Amino acid sequence: MPKKPTRREPAADPARASLTPETWIEAATAVLEYEGIDHVRIDALAQQLQVTRGSFYWHFRDREDLLRRVLQAWREHATEQITLRLERARVDPREQLRDVMSLPFRGRTAARAARIELAIRAWARRDEMARQAVDEADASRIGYHAQLFAALGFGADESRLRAFLLYSYELAESQLSRQGDSADKQARSAFVERLMTQALTG
Amino acid sequence: MPKKPTRREPAADPARASLTPETWIEAATAVLEYEGIDHVRIDALAQQLQVTRGSFYWHFRDREDLLRRVLQAWREHATEQITLRLERARVDPREQLRDVMSLPFRGRTAARAARIELAIRAWARRDEMARQAVDEADASRIGYHAQLFAALGFGADESRLRAFLLYSYELAESQLSRQGDSADKQARSAFVERLMTQALTG
Repeated sequence: MPKKPTRREPAADPARASLTPETWIEAATAVLEYEGIDHVRIDALAQQLQVTRGSFYWHFRDREDLLRRVLQAWREHATEQITLRLERARVDPREQLRDVMSLPFRGRTAARAARIELAIRAWARRDEMARQAVDEADASRIGYHAQLFAALGFGADESRLRAFLLYSYELAESQLSRQGDSADKQARSAFVERLMTQALTG
Repeated sequence: MPKKPTRREPAADPARASLTPETWIEAATAVLEYEGIDHVRIDALAQQLQVTRGSFYWHFRDREDLLRRVLQAWREHATEQITLRLERARVDPREQLRDVMSLPFRGRTAARAARIELAIRAWARRDEMARQAVDEADASRIGYHAQLFAALGFGADESRLRAFLLYSYELAESQLSRQGDSADKQARSAFVERLMTQALTG
């Protein structure tokens, strides 16, 4: 296994020749996160990873191929948590609901995921490949939320409607992280759980 | 008044010397919308507007100054609709609620506003000035929504909680425009209006 490179290693280390594709994908994702998609360039990545530009082509056909795999990795990660949750299949759907509602608040991991996701959403405004990855991730998460509402006893159509609204709330908590303090966020979460699980009246 | 430049006008037109700051701001916003903030560069804008780079400095101190005014223009526009609505003060708050809920669906204008806003949100991940503009616009819109719920008879605290959730829904409809067809969107809107205006039970 090649070591993950750090800036301290000498540039001539022959082990670099065998950087894994994942190292390139991770480096590209970090650039996407902090600088945006336009800064993801083979030259700059090779320099940062202290390898030749040529070694990039051992793993990827071209920049487009790298970007495709960045999106693939993001989608896998973004929906992985959902898949894990489905597999675990906790008995209490209410508990599952709380669990998924807490995702936007899970510290640094959530903050990083939010930054990467927003960068990908911005990219998706002008790139069809990114657009599709985002649409599929959104659809898969909304689908998971709909299953939770169905498990709580709502009909299929109403579960989809509730799922969209709850997913909207999670998206907003992740994007509007500076609206309110942590007490406000707790109050919002408790309110949303209550409203979202009550039957329509009137 | 200087004419708004088009690409057909000759490059030597002396009227260009008196381009308004608004022309630069609009051009910068269009670049932000389609290419992202890093592409907003004085050189490229001057070339696009067919004026000298030097003429930029008649209106702006530097690029930072231009960016500040792009954000200012966005905030004014983004909250303008809200201010107008407040001034009009329709009698029926329920009608006002429907009105604001329909904003994400208003055709090309809404689509363009959503693209610009997403570009600004992506920029705000790594720029404090943009972050503040976004936070203030979000806070002002949530505040407007809270006023609507208060007018519908909810208490102040609960109105804030409802406002956040309704604003989340609008944000999601604007960002997730490819989730569902127009019948789905209508069903979501009707459901959200119904759920958001019903009292908490139990």
